[in-house]
Amino acid sequence: MQFELSIVKIGGNVIGDKEQLSSFLDRFAQLMGPKILVHGGGNKATQVLKKMGIPPKMEGGRRITDRETLEVVTMVYGGLTNKTIVAQLQARRCNAIGLSGADANAIRAHKRPVKDIDYGFAGDVDEVDEKSISHLLVSGFVPVFCALTHNGEGQLLNTNADTIASEIAIAMSSKYKTTLYYCFEKKGVLLDRNDDQSVIKTINRSTYMDLREKGIISDGMLPKLENCFHALQKNVHKVCIGDISLLESEAELFTSLKLY
Amino acid sequence: MQFELSIVKIGGNVIGDKEQLSSFLDRFAQLMGPKILVHGGGNKATQVLKKMGIPPKMEGGRRITDRETLEVVTMVYGGLTNKTIVAQLQARRCNAIGLSGADANAIRAHKRPVKDIDYGFAGDVDEVDEKSISHLLVSGFVPVFCALTHNGEGQLLNTNADTIASEIAIAMSSKYKTTLYYCFEKKGVLLDRNDDQSVIKTINRSTYMDLREKGIISDGMLPKLENCFHALQKNVHKVCIGDISLLESEAELFTSLKLY
Repeated sequence: MQFELSIVKIGGNVIGDKEQLSSFLDRFAQLMGPKILVHGGGNKATQVLKKMGIPPKMEGGRRITDRETLEVVTMVYGGLTNKTIVAQLQARRCNAIGLSGADANAIRAHKRPVKDIDYGFAGDVDEVDEKSISHLLVSGFVPVFCALTHNGEGQLLNTNADTIASEIAIAMSSKYKTTLYYCFEKKGVLLDRNDDQSVIKTINRSTYMDLREKGIISDGMLPKLENCFHALQKNVHKVCIGDISLLESEAELFTSLKLY
Repeated sequence: MQFELSIVKIGGNVIGDKEQLSSFLDRFAQLMGPKILVHGGGNKATQVLKKMGIPPKMEGGRRITDRETLEVVTMVYGGLTNKTIVAQLQARRCNAIGLSGADANAIRAHKRPVKDIDYGFAGDVDEVDEKSISHLLVSGFVPVFCALTHNGEGQLLNTNADTIASEIAIAMSSKYKTTLYYCFEKKGVLLDRNDDQSVIKTINRSTYMDLREKGIISDGMLPKLENCFHALQKNVHKVCIGDISLLESEAELFTSLKLY
């Protein structure tokens, strides 16, 4: 028998909203069985950059991480956001342990090669150490990952949190029956982006291609869904997308991803 | 037979000096057996406070941690400094895992009661979870603590790193034969503060009282030595103070603390 494992990714917009974060953490703390949280950055990093007089640099919705930006995201993601979430989970008697990919050598990555755009210290994941993470789970800890990895040579790297969540889910699937939850501010993938109730209940590879062609799925949702299908293809048992009610056993309205 | 455990506290001035930090981490990575690192803050927090337009507030050499200062020290200690050290230890094949006292519920504290001075979100340690830390050591991890604790109700607290080191050493002494190393920029406790070679090789309770009366030991060295004697009294096996060469087996010039 394989143990079940839940990997939950929580988006930046939920983290930035104190009340939503608190409701989310209530639900996450109550989730049964071994579990892992992955959190995005939220807009705090941009606020701190501005306060420090460092202009935020974006390119096609992605952050350009130069050296001083990396310092700030390390402070905000690895320090402020991660430790605040850990302390709040501990208050809910959930034995959280906050990690970057450097901690316990959990996630190794390489600096993204420069093609058209130089993303700076942005990391693409090479390897997740399933054994290290398993040690923590078996000891009863709940790993809480921020969106930082390392290259094994001392360099921290800013890494997409959706990708971290899917790569962790894939690596842990060699040992656990994993479910990957992407929680964000919407109830799921929407058929009409102006109607929050128009959730598409199931998307598979072929309906995905169709929705993409019609322009119904676009922009930031595309890489998110690519991550989902990649995870399913690599033996992640279940992948779903929704808002914070996704973690409730009676949740009804969310998007479930299927390969076929 | 009891296993030996080394707890090393590294001061802010060493952390602030890139070359010294690198030499220290070389030595720490090579230290045999289970080990724990505790790091102070350095002056980076003050730099970031100034850049963000927050005036650093000090009182008798101690930081007053108001709400916005706590945000900054959480970013700098728990994020930038901690993750940088962890990544650099990983590059030395030392399986570091960075922690605040909230992570793994490792160090519980309470907010210092307001007497003459309101220190704000400053924490006094109540309890170190020896079991949590042992789990990490047994799994082969090297815990790296920053100077933050939590109150178990969701509040992070800024806590003196010397005290964190001695409290961890005391708690771990129930299971391990512990040695506590305080590494800073001097070769030990000096008889003449203008002569770096005038290291007092051994200090016990009675010579300490004498040195204190004569004003040879004063200021910041007093609470450091109080921490040392407190640790010895609570079954920590060995306590020494020196510079980064303290970790070498052939180290000769340092201060060794004894009860009698």
